[in-house]
Amino acid sequence: MNDPEAPIALDLDDLQEIARPLLETSAFDYFAGGSGTESTLRDNVDAWRRIRLRPRVFRDVTSVDLSTTVMGTTVSMPVLLAPVAYHGMAHEHAEIATASAAALADTIMVVSTLANVALEDIATATPGGSKWFQLYVHVDRELTRSLVQRAESSGYEAIVITVDTPKLGQRRRDERNRFALPPNLRIANIAGRPTAADPSEIANYASSAFASVTLEDIEWLRSITSLPIAIKGVLRPDDAQACLAVGAQAVIVSNHGGRQLDGAVATADVLAEVSDAVGDAGEVLVDGGIRSGTDVVRALALGARAVLIGRPQVWGLAIDGAAGVRTVLETLRTETTLAFQLAGARTNAEITSDLIWAPSSR
Amino acid sequence: MNDPEAPIALDLDDLQEIARPLLETSAFDYFAGGSGTESTLRDNVDAWRRIRLRPRVFRDVTSVDLSTTVMGTTVSMPVLLAPVAYHGMAHEHAEIATASAAALADTIMVVSTLANVALEDIATATPGGSKWFQLYVHVDRELTRSLVQRAESSGYEAIVITVDTPKLGQRRRDERNRFALPPNLRIANIAGRPTAADPSEIANYASSAFASVTLEDIEWLRSITSLPIAIKGVLRPDDAQACLAVGAQAVIVSNHGGRQLDGAVATADVLAEVSDAVGDAGEVLVDGGIRSGTDVVRALALGARAVLIGRPQVWGLAIDGAAGVRTVLETLRTETTLAFQLAGARTNAEITSDLIWAPSSR
Amino acid sequence: MNDPEAPIALDLDDLQEIARPLLETSAFDYFAGGSGTESTLRDNVDAWRRIRLRPRVFRDVTSVDLSTTVMGTTVSMPVLLAPVAYHGMAHEHAEIATASAAALADTIMVVSTLANVALEDIATATPGGSKWFQLYVHVDRELTRSLVQRAESSGYEAIVITVDTPKLGQRRRDERNRFALPPNLRIANIAGRPTAADPSEIANYASSAFASVTLEDIEWLRSITSLPIAIKGVLRPDDAQACLAVGAQAVIVSNHGGRQLDGAVATADVLAEVSDAVGDAGEVLVDGGIRSGTDVVRALALGARAVLIGRPQVWGLAIDGAAGVRTVLETLRTETTLAFQLAGARTNAEITSDLIWAPSSR
Amino acid sequence: MNDPEAPIALDLDDLQEIARPLLETSAFDYFAGGSGTESTLRDNVDAWRRIRLRPRVFRDVTSVDLSTTVMGTTVSMPVLLAPVAYHGMAHEHAEIATASAAALADTIMVVSTLANVALEDIATATPGGSKWFQLYVHVDRELTRSLVQRAESSGYEAIVITVDTPKLGQRRRDERNRFALPPNLRIANIAGRPTAADPSEIANYASSAFASVTLEDIEWLRSITSLPIAIKGVLRPDDAQACLAVGAQAVIVSNHGGRQLDGAVATADVLAEVSDAVGDAGEVLVDGGIRSGTDVVRALALGARAVLIGRPQVWGLAIDGAAGVRTVLETLRTETTLAFQLAGARTNAEITSDLIWAPSSR
Repeated sequence: MNDPEAPIALDLDDLQEIARPLLETSAFDYFAGGSGTESTLRDNVDAWRRIRLRPRVFRDVTSVDLSTTVMGTTVSMPVLLAPVAYHGMAHEHAEIATASAAALADTIMVVSTLANVALEDIATATPGGSKWFQLYVHVDRELTRSLVQRAESSGYEAIVITVDTPKLGQRRRDERNRFALPPNLRIANIAGRPTAADPSEIANYASSAFASVTLEDIEWLRSITSLPIAIKGVLRPDDAQACLAVGAQAVIVSNHGGRQLDGAVATADVLAEVSDAVGDAGEVLVDGGIRSGTDVVRALALGARAVLIGRPQVWGLAIDGAAGVRTVLETLRTETTLAFQLAGARTNAEITSDLIWAPSSR
Repeated sequence: MNDPEAPIALDLDDLQEIARPLLETSAFDYFAGGSGTESTLRDNVDAWRRIRLRPRVFRDVTSVDLSTTVMGTTVSMPVLLAPVAYHGMAHEHAEIATASAAALADTIMVVSTLANVALEDIATATPGGSKWFQLYVHVDRELTRSLVQRAESSGYEAIVITVDTPKLGQRRRDERNRFALPPNLRIANIAGRPTAADPSEIANYASSAFASVTLEDIEWLRSITSLPIAIKGVLRPDDAQACLAVGAQAVIVSNHGGRQLDGAVATADVLAEVSDAVGDAGEVLVDGGIRSGTDVVRALALGARAVLIGRPQVWGLAIDGAAGVRTVLETLRTETTLAFQLAGARTNAEITSDLIWAPSSR
Repeated sequence: MNDPEAPIALDLDDLQEIARPLLETSAFDYFAGGSGTESTLRDNVDAWRRIRLRPRVFRDVTSVDLSTTVMGTTVSMPVLLAPVAYHGMAHEHAEIATASAAALADTIMVVSTLANVALEDIATATPGGSKWFQLYVHVDRELTRSLVQRAESSGYEAIVITVDTPKLGQRRRDERNRFALPPNLRIANIAGRPTAADPSEIANYASSAFASVTLEDIEWLRSITSLPIAIKGVLRPDDAQACLAVGAQAVIVSNHGGRQLDGAVATADVLAEVSDAVGDAGEVLVDGGIRSGTDVVRALALGARAVLIGRPQVWGLAIDGAAGVRTVLETLRTETTLAFQLAGARTNAEITSDLIWAPSSR
Repeated sequence: MNDPEAPIALDLDDLQEIARPLLETSAFDYFAGGSGTESTLRDNVDAWRRIRLRPRVFRDVTSVDLSTTVMGTTVSMPVLLAPVAYHGMAHEHAEIATASAAALADTIMVVSTLANVALEDIATATPGGSKWFQLYVHVDRELTRSLVQRAESSGYEAIVITVDTPKLGQRRRDERNRFALPPNLRIANIAGRPTAADPSEIANYASSAFASVTLEDIEWLRSITSLPIAIKGVLRPDDAQACLAVGAQAVIVSNHGGRQLDGAVATADVLAEVSDAVGDAGEVLVDGGIRSGTDVVRALALGARAVLIGRPQVWGLAIDGAAGVRTVLETLRTETTLAFQLAGARTNAEITSDLIWAPSSR
């Protein structure tokens, strides 16, 4: 924080308000909003903060190593960029800017099916960075196969299959704003894309084109790619175990950032039971409401191998493009390093469950 | 939501404020208020929202079937219209408007003893719709018998006996407003009705005319009608079992919308234990504070066969008559369908108790 | 409520604000305030309201009998007037007014040692009413003996010994106001009373004159009077059992209205465990934060034989003298009757612990 | 409170606001602030207040003895002055003023490594008072040894080793204020001190000069001094036991006043488990959020031998120098004496764990 070379200290809590005036209202609301009463959106953040930590002392934490591997991909820290649609609404360089920041930070960007830049173009523009491809399974299996194969050919290192979106959640902000993609933007990965400027078309796209994903779909996808597969949108031990049984390498504990079922449990509240159910049979990642290095420590202590951040990357992107996303990542790196040190841990492996304070009589 | 033919998206939370200026203050307060400090009124809503859900994935939820039967009556969805007095204060078409909406939505309207339109007239005006009759047991057994027989003759398909009203709860808003029925309205089902415009008469009616219902009353009612009987106002497993023992087909878990004993437990908090006590021996319904499709899923997961909504139907009625009530019902249908899909359920039977997240350490 | 002969419906929650402008600030604060941060003062009220009830149905509650006996004294309802000092600050008729109201309501007034009217004068002025005498045990045993004997001679039916006041709690409002008795008032029961108008004298009186009561003191008091004895200020099962072992007939679960140890547990939170410890060996009463008929039901369901109300009687007294206190009592009677009916109870004995909802999974 | 000789009644809750305008903003924020979102800072205070007490009656508490020994040092009450840096920012007499007040109050001042007056000068100026020396273990072992030996030579009676500061927590207020020591102040105990007026130098000092303390460091320190050693910054039973195993006499349960790991558990929440783990093998002290005599009773009931107060001493110092600190201490003494009396305890030993109310069903 005090090193002039280090990134400017940023409080991730403040980023949303800094970014708000820089975005069209309908774009801001699209990114910031959740479904229904937004109770899950709020609870995602609150649930981490309810968890109290019991730091250790007497460890020499002079040097800390945050690096790890996630499904075989090496990253410099256990913080990844979650898939987020439509980066073009936040910055003219769109997903290229975000991918550049991820590459410089030596972490993984998970590129969304709904990117405004084609997955090949993102790969070409940022050759050094590790990328995973987030797949919305389409009713059209050939389109789905094509997306997977294009990602594999372009050097993406894993497929993240979102399974919590058989229909879109009711996003009241978007309904109120009659949200539509700006005319200059497109869903670049999809050839027969809807006309961007028409709200009903864009909003209907997910509902009509996306499949209600079943385990058979996962098995089929498992059969058409050799990339590791992560399943995103799991909140239950039984579903997590089913993922591994059909060949996935990882599950991402997620409620889609509070954008799907309003009233769904916060990810922090189910992470430990999902991690316990998975055990050594796979890796567990988590997203939803993570806003600080302390939150990263909480997630790792509850069994996550790494976390993904969604909205903060968008606010960084809106504020300063690639540099803004980088600042978000470096702020989290600085905070996470310090949280490791103050918790008494030198490596990810040393963030263990005993760091969580379990109230006996509270 | 995005289908131009579908009803306008309505947030049921907002309806009350939209309806407020359309009603006389004393009528608004009559419908909106509860007893005492209104703690149960508020807790009814809050208790559902405290319950977090653990949605399933990997189910093909492309098509959902909300239809079910309730005490033998087929409905298109597990959402019924709870009995509410004095619809005439909300709209000039009164219960006729409400019944029309229920018929079009293919669900059940439970007509109140205290309707402003005679039960026969409601039945005649809306021949296609299923109706149940809500009975306030009167001290005058012949009047009571007559009400039941008139309902049976008019095609009502069940009797709902309210048992939580030996006296009216203390409704401070009504006392402050000196609430009285407007001069043009009457309690149409009762011949020797009190003079509508006199506050003390109307308020005293319940206390003097209604019986303090016992199991013997239920047995007697069981003996005089062949219609199925539901008992409304049960909050305890022992009382629920007593209902079934004397021949009722269903219990409605209810605290009268927070209008009777202030401090009574929220219905969401006792639904599971009542459902467990009833088991397969009868059906369990619930009302009180249900405001969204997520709430419907919560109620079904806790063991309800269907829910009843009270105040929202009145707000819809005040806003736009039959069309307003219809919009409320279709909004709930849309929300419930989506909540089923996002929870991973295709039928009512697939809404099971494992969808409720039980905190282990919270 | 709707009977024109019945007292005007009063919400006890509102009484404090109605009374505020009628009292000198320092008098209002003396009555309203608690010790320290007033956390116990607030929690006393909140703790009752946290308790949810599970009313019964199917009881014929057409007629309700609230009458009971408390330590052998018959009362028309399980609501007594707690001892409160200095009624003269609230109304010129002081304790005479309060005692008149209690007599008319057929309940017990517990007259404070610190009354502004001598105990004999109260007895003479209100011959029909049952009175108990609240005793502050003084370091001066002869003074103490004299108080007990005067009460016994004057027809008081029991002695209530306050044991939680070895020193006065730190009442910050009184310190700020430099609280003193107005010049025209005196502690009428004590001959060598402090000069009323001197704040430091009046405030020091309790600390210097009151004894730190021990069980030996109780045994001595037991030996000098044949009246039944209640011990006021008990919050623990062991202390309650000790009271009975030395010959007390009753314990009053009390934290002195949040005026002694700030941070002491709310009385509602310990009532059940104290009642369980006492069992059939004595009677348990409770005060602190009771503001409604529902609260009375809660207290009885947790094991109290009756409740005592403190501050509300003062607000009634300030508002309208004896008539105001009477209105408070009749309001509570009306509310308690209705709460009995809506809870499904006809007598005090039917208010049983199963009316308390115990959350299994909350 | 009512004795004209006694200190003016002060509510410690109010002190911070009284002191605020008397301090430079950056100094006020340095003292008042915590790390990150300040959640631990707030929870430290709240956690004590959540604990409800069950006072005893029937003890003769006319006279109370608060005196005790802590690691062999006799104190007049179980309230010590926690180590706080930079007293010079609060008052021109700096640590001399604070030490004078501690001496007059007959309690221990723990002098910080980061004092603005050299430890020898403090000792010389206040010969009558017991002092302990708080040690930041430096990477430079000779400097560390020198600090310990200087303290021992100057009559300090114990060494308090802070072990929770391998790096400084992220203090956002200080970053915003670009906090630096005023030009006239210095870290008097350290010869090669950083230039006070340079924010980056002063802020970097801790990070570069302080060691990440290990058990080997404690063993080495144990070998170079015969003074008793307390380890400050312990929140876990295992770490507490490790302290005793290497020869410490006491552990101080502390999260550094919410200034290190944001999200760390409140000290009140772990005190009992640490005390249980230590048992008779050592002494347990606690700091963090203690603001009243009731809080002192809570801490002792949870197993602490004494408490330390940090921020309140600074507010007293800023308000009135030595007299202000004295007032803070005497206010706490008065409050603690009264809390003992109202809880039914005459000595520290009589503050036992049964005074804590453990909710059975809450």
